[in-house]
Amino acid sequence: MKKVVTFGEIMLRLSPEGYNRFLQNDRLNATYGGGEANVAVSLANFGLDSKYVTKLPTHAIGQGAVDSLRYFGVDTSAITRGGDRVGIYFLEKGASVRGSNCIYDRAYSAIALADESDFDWQAIFADADWFHFTGITPALGGNLPSICLKAVKTAKKMGLTVSCDLNYRSKLWSRESAKSVMTDLIKYVDVCIANEEDAKDVFGIEALDTNIYGGKLNKDGYKSVAKQIADIYGVKKVAITLRESISASDNGWSAMLFDGNDYYFSKHYDLHIVDRVGGGDSFGAGLIYAIKSGFDAQSVIEFAVAASALKQTVEGDFNRVTVKEVLRLAGGDASGRVQR
Amino acid sequence: MKKVVTFGEIMLRLSPEGYNRFLQNDRLNATYGGGEANVAVSLANFGLDSKYVTKLPTHAIGQGAVDSLRYFGVDTSAITRGGDRVGIYFLEKGASVRGSNCIYDRAYSAIALADESDFDWQAIFADADWFHFTGITPALGGNLPSICLKAVKTAKKMGLTVSCDLNYRSKLWSRESAKSVMTDLIKYVDVCIANEEDAKDVFGIEALDTNIYGGKLNKDGYKSVAKQIADIYGVKKVAITLRESISASDNGWSAMLFDGNDYYFSKHYDLHIVDRVGGGDSFGAGLIYAIKSGFDAQSVIEFAVAASALKQTVEGDFNRVTVKEVLRLAGGDASGRVQR
Amino acid sequence: MKKVVTFGEIMLRLSPEGYNRFLQNDRLNATYGGGEANVAVSLANFGLDSKYVTKLPTHAIGQGAVDSLRYFGVDTSAITRGGDRVGIYFLEKGASVRGSNCIYDRAYSAIALADESDFDWQAIFADADWFHFTGITPALGGNLPSICLKAVKTAKKMGLTVSCDLNYRSKLWSRESAKSVMTDLIKYVDVCIANEEDAKDVFGIEALDTNIYGGKLNKDGYKSVAKQIADIYGVKKVAITLRESISASDNGWSAMLFDGNDYYFSKHYDLHIVDRVGGGDSFGAGLIYAIKSGFDAQSVIEFAVAASALKQTVEGDFNRVTVKEVLRLAGGDASGRVQR
Amino acid sequence: MKKVVTFGEIMLRLSPEGYNRFLQNDRLNATYGGGEANVAVSLANFGLDSKYVTKLPTHAIGQGAVDSLRYFGVDTSAITRGGDRVGIYFLEKGASVRGSNCIYDRAYSAIALADESDFDWQAIFADADWFHFTGITPALGGNLPSICLKAVKTAKKMGLTVSCDLNYRSKLWSRESAKSVMTDLIKYVDVCIANEEDAKDVFGIEALDTNIYGGKLNKDGYKSVAKQIADIYGVKKVAITLRESISASDNGWSAMLFDGNDYYFSKHYDLHIVDRVGGGDSFGAGLIYAIKSGFDAQSVIEFAVAASALKQTVEGDFNRVTVKEVLRLAGGDASGRVQR
Amino acid sequence: MKKVVTFGEIMLRLSPEGYNRFLQNDRLNATYGGGEANVAVSLANFGLDSKYVTKLPTHAIGQGAVDSLRYFGVDTSAITRGGDRVGIYFLEKGASVRGSNCIYDRAYSAIALADESDFDWQAIFADADWFHFTGITPALGGNLPSICLKAVKTAKKMGLTVSCDLNYRSKLWSRESAKSVMTDLIKYVDVCIANEEDAKDVFGIEALDTNIYGGKLNKDGYKSVAKQIADIYGVKKVAITLRESISASDNGWSAMLFDGNDYYFSKHYDLHIVDRVGGGDSFGAGLIYAIKSGFDAQSVIEFAVAASALKQTVEGDFNRVTVKEVLRLAGGDASGRVQR
Amino acid sequence: MKKVVTFGEIMLRLSPEGYNRFLQNDRLNATYGGGEANVAVSLANFGLDSKYVTKLPTHAIGQGAVDSLRYFGVDTSAITRGGDRVGIYFLEKGASVRGSNCIYDRAYSAIALADESDFDWQAIFADADWFHFTGITPALGGNLPSICLKAVKTAKKMGLTVSCDLNYRSKLWSRESAKSVMTDLIKYVDVCIANEEDAKDVFGIEALDTNIYGGKLNKDGYKSVAKQIADIYGVKKVAITLRESISASDNGWSAMLFDGNDYYFSKHYDLHIVDRVGGGDSFGAGLIYAIKSGFDAQSVIEFAVAASALKQTVEGDFNRVTVKEVLRLAGGDASGRVQR
Repeated sequence: MKKVVTFGEIMLRLSPEGYNRFLQNDRLNATYGGGEANVAVSLANFGLDSKYVTKLPTHAIGQGAVDSLRYFGVDTSAITRGGDRVGIYFLEKGASVRGSNCIYDRAYSAIALADESDFDWQAIFADADWFHFTGITPALGGNLPSICLKAVKTAKKMGLTVSCDLNYRSKLWSRESAKSVMTDLIKYVDVCIANEEDAKDVFGIEALDTNIYGGKLNKDGYKSVAKQIADIYGVKKVAITLRESISASDNGWSAMLFDGNDYYFSKHYDLHIVDRVGGGDSFGAGLIYAIKSGFDAQSVIEFAVAASALKQTVEGDFNRVTVKEVLRLAGGDASGRVQR
Repeated sequence: MKKVVTFGEIMLRLSPEGYNRFLQNDRLNATYGGGEANVAVSLANFGLDSKYVTKLPTHAIGQGAVDSLRYFGVDTSAITRGGDRVGIYFLEKGASVRGSNCIYDRAYSAIALADESDFDWQAIFADADWFHFTGITPALGGNLPSICLKAVKTAKKMGLTVSCDLNYRSKLWSRESAKSVMTDLIKYVDVCIANEEDAKDVFGIEALDTNIYGGKLNKDGYKSVAKQIADIYGVKKVAITLRESISASDNGWSAMLFDGNDYYFSKHYDLHIVDRVGGGDSFGAGLIYAIKSGFDAQSVIEFAVAASALKQTVEGDFNRVTVKEVLRLAGGDASGRVQR
Repeated sequence: MKKVVTFGEIMLRLSPEGYNRFLQNDRLNATYGGGEANVAVSLANFGLDSKYVTKLPTHAIGQGAVDSLRYFGVDTSAITRGGDRVGIYFLEKGASVRGSNCIYDRAYSAIALADESDFDWQAIFADADWFHFTGITPALGGNLPSICLKAVKTAKKMGLTVSCDLNYRSKLWSRESAKSVMTDLIKYVDVCIANEEDAKDVFGIEALDTNIYGGKLNKDGYKSVAKQIADIYGVKKVAITLRESISASDNGWSAMLFDGNDYYFSKHYDLHIVDRVGGGDSFGAGLIYAIKSGFDAQSVIEFAVAASALKQTVEGDFNRVTVKEVLRLAGGDASGRVQR
Repeated sequence: MKKVVTFGEIMLRLSPEGYNRFLQNDRLNATYGGGEANVAVSLANFGLDSKYVTKLPTHAIGQGAVDSLRYFGVDTSAITRGGDRVGIYFLEKGASVRGSNCIYDRAYSAIALADESDFDWQAIFADADWFHFTGITPALGGNLPSICLKAVKTAKKMGLTVSCDLNYRSKLWSRESAKSVMTDLIKYVDVCIANEEDAKDVFGIEALDTNIYGGKLNKDGYKSVAKQIADIYGVKKVAITLRESISASDNGWSAMLFDGNDYYFSKHYDLHIVDRVGGGDSFGAGLIYAIKSGFDAQSVIEFAVAASALKQTVEGDFNRVTVKEVLRLAGGDASGRVQR
Repeated sequence: MKKVVTFGEIMLRLSPEGYNRFLQNDRLNATYGGGEANVAVSLANFGLDSKYVTKLPTHAIGQGAVDSLRYFGVDTSAITRGGDRVGIYFLEKGASVRGSNCIYDRAYSAIALADESDFDWQAIFADADWFHFTGITPALGGNLPSICLKAVKTAKKMGLTVSCDLNYRSKLWSRESAKSVMTDLIKYVDVCIANEEDAKDVFGIEALDTNIYGGKLNKDGYKSVAKQIADIYGVKKVAITLRESISASDNGWSAMLFDGNDYYFSKHYDLHIVDRVGGGDSFGAGLIYAIKSGFDAQSVIEFAVAASALKQTVEGDFNRVTVKEVLRLAGGDASGRVQR
Repeated sequence: MKKVVTFGEIMLRLSPEGYNRFLQNDRLNATYGGGEANVAVSLANFGLDSKYVTKLPTHAIGQGAVDSLRYFGVDTSAITRGGDRVGIYFLEKGASVRGSNCIYDRAYSAIALADESDFDWQAIFADADWFHFTGITPALGGNLPSICLKAVKTAKKMGLTVSCDLNYRSKLWSRESAKSVMTDLIKYVDVCIANEEDAKDVFGIEALDTNIYGGKLNKDGYKSVAKQIADIYGVKKVAITLRESISASDNGWSAMLFDGNDYYFSKHYDLHIVDRVGGGDSFGAGLIYAIKSGFDAQSVIEFAVAASALKQTVEGDFNRVTVKEVLRLAGGDASGRVQR
C-alpha cells in the first residue's frame, strides 16, 4: 500500500483540565497536535500507511512528539531531528456562551526555522501516492513557502495526488501574504478543503448571504465558492465544511463536496462537543481515506463528515476512531447506545 | 424487616476518566458493579435490608467487591469466598454521536465457575421475603442455570416474592439458550422487568411498529408485550422501560407497569446523561422498593422511573440516591435548583 | 481610582470532582468563595480597585482565603485576623434532573463571632466610593446586624454608594428576622439586587403569576416588585435576576433593571451550566462595574447579565472573566468559536 | 464471637496530595479517621467483630463517616445520628526536616455536644467483651467525661475488659483537666497504652534521662513509667510505644509491654514513613487483637508493634493490613520483596 | 541493523497510585508490561531494532498493548491478533517494611491459549540476529513449551544468538515442570540470565551460604552457580543479578557476568526504589545491548547493572532511559545533580 | 517598611507528576518560578515587603505569572507588560541514582527582549532599601547586561543594599561573557552569594581539593574562595552554599558566611529531597531576611541554611515557609514531629 505523506508542524498542546480557564489550577494536560499531524494519525487509525514529515528537536519534548505519532503507527522515519524548540499552543476549552481560547507560542520552533535542505522530497515520496498539507505550513514563514512549493512540485512530478486544507490563520500571516503564497501552491493541488471563511481570507472568494455567526446555511453560496476555487485554480475536488456555532457546547456540522461536476451535501449532525480542535483535520483525513478507498462522491462526503463529527466527541487533537465506527455513524446510528 | 436477596455477578468496572477513549491515557476509574449488585445497593440506599449473594475470590480484588457492598450497608455474609478471578468489564463512556463501548472480560470468574454446593438457599432465604435476579446470572453458563432454578424454587417454596429482569446479553448466550433456560425460570417469577428488546430476544415476544433506534413510543405495542408475558408465563406484574436514545448524551426515559389489570405509564424525562450504566437496575430497585412499600400502581412506576432517571445522572453502576430525592423528582421538581 | 469595598464571609468550598456525589470518592476540590468575596474578585478582574473586608483566623486555612483573594489583586489589607475557624460549605454539583446540594458548616466562624471593634469603617472607607454587601452578612447573626448597620451608616455619611444583594438564606435566619434587620439596612442602600423570591422572603413583596419552578417569565410581575422596593425603601436602582431552571444543566438567564424611571430587560441566554454558584454575585459585580463606568441603563443590565452568564460557564465561585470577554458576549457573540 | 466496642470521634480528614503544603493547590484528599475509629477498623481488618460508637449528623458528611466504617465491616448500628457537624482535621504531611502539621476544626461537632442520653451502654455492651477508648474522647469536653465514666463503669460491671490509650492532646485540654478526669477513668481500665509523654502530661509520671527529640532509648525509664502507672492506678497491663523521630520521613519504632510482672521489649523497626497518623491507634488494635487471641506476652508486643509499623506505610488513618501481613513482618521478613 | 526478537506475554498492569493499597481509592494506573516486552522496549530505547512477538486480541485492550509498544518504536508487525483476553496483573507497590503485592489474572489470555500455527518463526527471524525469551513464556503452559522449543530451534538454525532469563514463577508452574521444560530449551541458549533463586528453582543448582533475605553477598556462591549452569547446559555466558532487599524502599543492586572464562562483578548500587518491577528485564536488555555493541566483559556487566539501577527509579515496567544516561551512571555519576 | 526589589525572569515551569519522566503520561504540573521571583516570594512569606520587576506579556500565561506572585503578596505593580512569550522550563525530578533534568525553552521571552526604557529604576527603587538580582538576569543577553548595570548603579546611588547570586548557567552564556559582564556588575554588589562552582565559572576563582561530586567538604577551600571574592571585587559579605549530592534523593546541605572578618559555618543537614529547585534562591532570601532583621552573623547563616533546607522539602520553586518554621528548624528541631 502506498503511503499518504503529510507535512507540517506538530505542537505540544497544553490544556487545562475540563472546563477550567487557563492556569485556574496547577495542572495541564499535555498532548501533541497540529493540522497535518492530526490528519496523519486519523489515516493511520483508518488503516492507511501514513508518513508524517516535520522537523523536531532531539530533546525529550521533541522526542515526545515522535513517540505520540508512533503510538498510532504513523511512520516517523522522515522526520528531521534538530533545532531547539517545539511549538506550543495553550488551549482553553469553552463551554456554553464562553468560547474556547488559544494562545500560540510557536514562533522560533524547529520547523519554523527549517531549511530546504532538511527535506529530501524525492526520497520522502518514494513510497507514497498522496501528499497532504495545510495553509498553516507555508504560513509559518521563513523557508516554509519555498519548502512547500518544492514539495508540491516534486509530488506532482512523481504522480502523487496533492490535497490542501486552506486553514487560514490571521495570527500567522496577512491575507495578502496568504494569497500570494497560496496562489502559487494551489496550482499543484488536486483536492482543496476549506470552510467559507478560508476561501475569502486566502483568495478573496466570497459567497453571498452567509453569516458564520448565525446558523442558516446558504447552500447556493457554498456551491458558488467551491466552483470558483475549482474554476480559477484548476482544483479537481473542493470540499467545504459547514459549521454552525450555536454555542461552544453545541454545533451543527455538515459538509459539501464538489467533484467538478456535482455538489454533494452530507447529512447534518447536531453535536454536543467534547473537543472541537482537529475537527477540520479529521474531515480532511476522512476525505482522503474515502477517496483513496474508491467511495462514490456521496459516500465520500458522508464518511468525511461522520469522521469529523466523531472527532468532536474525542478529547485531544487526534481522532481516535476506526473506520467501523465512522461507517456505523455514517450509516445512520447516532443513537449513542452502548456497544456491548 | 425481611430482607431482599439478590444473586448474580459483581464485576470490577474499569473506565477511562470523563469522555476519554479506552487507554487514551494511563488512568482508569476502578469501581464495582453488576446487575443484581446494583439492585442490592439501591435497595440499601432506600433503607431496605438488602442481602447480596455471589461467589468471590479471597484476594484483594475479590475483597474489594465485598467492601464496596458493605460500604452501602448491604449484607455480604452470604457471599461464598473462593475461585480465582473477579469478572472485569471495561467501560468507555460515549458522548453525543459516539456511543459507549463495553468490553467484557468476565469468563472464568469465580461465580461463573460456581457449584450448586456453593449456595445454601434455605439458609440464605431464612430472613428474606423477596428474591431478585436477572437474566445475566443464568447466562453466565456452567452451573448457573441450575443454581438459579434451585434458588427460585426454594424462594417460591419459602414464600418469597421473586422478581427477574430479563436483561438479555447476546455476548453471553444465544436467543435459543436464553429462551430454553428462562422459560423454566420465569414460571417462578412474580414480577418481570424488561425492555422491548429483551422480550423479543428471550421469548420472541414482539410488539409492532416500534423502532428502538428512533424516538417514537408505541404505547399499544408495549401494552401488548407486557400482556403476552403475563399471560403466557403467569407473571403477576410486568414493567417495561422505554428508552429513546437521541444520542449518547441525551435520552428520553419513561416506563410502563402492567399489574395484571391495567397499564400505568410514567412521566417522561429528558435526560442529559452522566452515566447510563445501571439505569435498568435502578429501575428494578425502585420497583421493588415501591411495591414492598405498598405504593399504588401509578406511584410504583413513577418511583421506579424517577429513581432510574436520577441514577443516570450519577457516576458508576450504583445508584447513590435516597428515597427523599426520588420522591422529590417523582413529585415534579426536575428543576435542578441548588438544595441549600 | 476609588475603591469598591465588600464585606462578608469567605468560606472554604469543598466540592467533589465533576458530577460525583458527596464523598463518592476520596478527592475534594478546595477553593474559596462567598457572596461578597465573589463580587470583590469579579471587580478586580474587571480592573477596578477592590477591597474585601472580613475576619479570618491566622492559620493556614485562614491564610489560604487571603491568598486566594490577593491572587486576583483584591486588597486584603483591611481583613481582621483572628478567631478559630473558617466557614466551610460542601457543594455537590447536580446534573440534569438531579439538583445541586449544599451543606453549610459555617457556624462559629471567625466572622460570625466578630465584634464591632474588629472593623474601623472610617479607615476602611477612606479610599473608597462604593460599599457592597449582601443579606447573608447580617444573617450570620451575632454582632453582624449591628456591624452592618454601622458600616452602611458610615458609608452613607462618607458619601459612598451602597449596594446590597438581598440573598435570602432560610438556613441562616427566619423571614421575620430578615425583615426586621434588612428593613433597617435597606434605608442606606442605593442599589438593590434581588431575585423575586428574595423580595418575597425578606420584605414580603410579591408579584403575581410567577412560578419559579416553571419557565415563563412574568415581566409585569418583575416590574411591580422592583417598583415596590424602590418606592417603599427609597432605593434608587433595583436589579432583578430572572433564572428559569429547566434542569440542573440547562437554565434560562436574564435580568431587569429599574432605574427609578424605566424598566430595562436584558437579552435572554440559554445556558449550559458548568457551575451556577456565584451567578448572582457576578451579576452584582457586573452591575457595579457598569454603573461606575457610566454605562447607560440598557448597557448596564446587558453587561451585568452577560457577566453572570459567563460566570456560570466557569468552575468555582469566582468569575474569572475580563471586561473584554463580557463585552464580546453582551455584543452578541455567543457562538463559542475558538479565539485563536 | 463477642465484639470489641470503641467509642470516640471520627473526623473528616482533609489532606493535600503528596507532600504539598496546605492549599498549595486546589485538591484535598478526603478520608475519615479518629483514634478509636482507627482501632475499630484495624480490629475489623484483623477479623474481629468490631463495633464503633459515636454521634454523627444525618447529612452526607455524617453518612460518609458511617459508610467508611461499614466498608471495613465495622458494626455501625450503635452510632447515634444527630447534631450538625462532623469534626474536621486538616493534615499536612511533612517530609525530611519539615514536620507534619495538623489544624483541628472539631469544636461543636455532634459528638462533642452529645448528651448522656445519646448512648445506652447496657445495650451497646450486650454482645461485647472488650471496651476501648482514648483520652481524646473525654478531652472533647461537654458531657464526654461523664459519658465516658458511665461507659467504663457499665463495661466493668458487665465484665468487659477495658483498654485506654492516654493520647494526651494539649489543644483539647490542660494537664490539670486531663489529670482530674483521667484519674477517675483509669480506675476502670485493665490495659493502658501510652507513650512516655502521655504519662507525664496526664499523670505527671516521669522517667529520667529520656529525650524524645533525640533517638536514644532509655529502657529503664520506660520500665519505671509503666510500673508506676500499674502500681498507682491498678492497671493490669501497660504498653508504651517508643518513637524515635529522626525526621518526618524516618523514624525508629518499637514498644514495650509490662504485664504486671515482666517487661517485654519488641524488635526495633527503622521506618520510612508514608503516613504516621494512626500509628499509635494501630498499635492499640494490634495489642487488643493479640491479647484477645491469647498470644504470649512477647508475641503480643511483637504483633502490636509490627501492626503499627505497617500502618505507617499506609496512607490515611486506617490500618489496611491483615493478620497474615502483620505476622509475616513480626516473623522477621522486613525485606519488602514482591509478594507474587 | 539486524533485529532483536523477544517473545512472551504483555499484560495490562493495574496499579494503585503512589503507595495506596489495592482499591484504597477508585483510581488505577493502567500501563502495559511483561518480561519480554520490557526487554523489547529497553532495546528500542537504546536505539536497537527491536521486534516483539505475542498474541493479542483485536479489541481496544489488545490494541492498547500494541500501541504502547509502537510508542517506543518497537516493531509490532509480527504480533498475531486474536483471542479474547489480555492478561492482567494487579500491582501494589510496597514501602518500607511493607512489601509489594502482585495479583495475577493472566490465565486464559490470548497468548496462553495460542497455537503453534500462530507464529511463523522462519519469517519472524528473517531480519533478526538475536532471540530473547524468559522462563515465564513456557510457564504459561498450553502449547507454549512446544512453541518456545520451535522458536529456539529455528533461531539456532538461522544463526541467531539466543538469550533466556530463567525467571522462575512458582504461581505458574512447579519446579518439576520448570526443570523438565527448561532443560529442553536451555540447550539452545547462548546467554543465560538468572538470580540465585532461579537457578535453584529451575535446575536445582545451589550455592552455599547465601541468604536472599539477608544482605551479605557470597561471591563464591554466585561463581559456583554460574559455572554449573554453563558447564551442565553448554551456555556460553551466564549473568546473575544480586539483589539485597533491605526493605521495599531500599535495595542493594549489583550483578556478575561469567563469560566462560572469568567472573566480572559490577559496581554495587544503593537504590532508593521508585518501581522495582522490570528491574531484571532491564538488566537483560542492558546485557543484550552491551554484548551486541561489542563492549568488553566488565563494561557489559557495568552497563547492564547501571541500566537496571536506573529502571528501578522509573515508574512502570518499561525502562525509559537512553544509552547516554546509562553510560553516565555506569561512568560513576550517581550524584543525581540536575542536568540543566 | 522599605521594600526589597528583585529583578529577573519568571518562567512557566512544567513538570511531570511525581517521579515520572518527561511526557511519561499526559499531565504536567504548571507553576511559575525563576531565581529572583523565588527570592521575592520567600521574602513576602517572611513578612517583608517585596517587589518583583520583570516584563511579561498581557495574555493569560503572562497574567498567570503576575497572579502567582500576588498570591503571596508580592508587589507586582512595577512589572512591565508586553512582549509575546513567557519563558518556559520543563523540569523532570530525579530519584535515587537518576538525576533531575531540565529543558529550557526561554529564548525570545518578553524579558529577554526587553528594552532599557521598559524599566524606570528611579521610580522602582523609590520605596526600597535592597536590590537583589542573580547572574541569570544579565545572562539572558540582549539589553539585559546594560539594564542590570543601570539598575545596580541607580540602586547604589539611591543608597540601597545590593545583593547578587552568581548563579552561573552554561547554557545561557560562556564563561568569558559571564566574567566580562559580571565583573562590571559585581562592583556595585554588597552581598555576594555563590557556590564554589559559580566562583570558578564566573570569575575563575578556585579552591583546591574540593570535588563537588564527592561528599567531603574542604572548609579551607571555601574560606579561600569567599575571601578572594571579597578582596578582589570589594564585596562586603560573601555566602557560599555547600551541597553534597549523595543522590538525587539525598543531599547534604550547609553553608558558610564571610562577613569580611570571620567565617561562619552553619549546621549541616541531611536532606531527603522533595524538590531541590529553588534551594539556592531560598538561601538568598533567608540571608537577606536575616541581615535586614539584624541577626548576628552566625544566626544569619543558620537562618539562611535552615530556610533553604525547608525549601527542599516543598514542591515547586517557591519556598512556602514562615519565619517561625525556619526558626524552629534552625533552633534544632529537625525531628519532623506532627505540629498538632
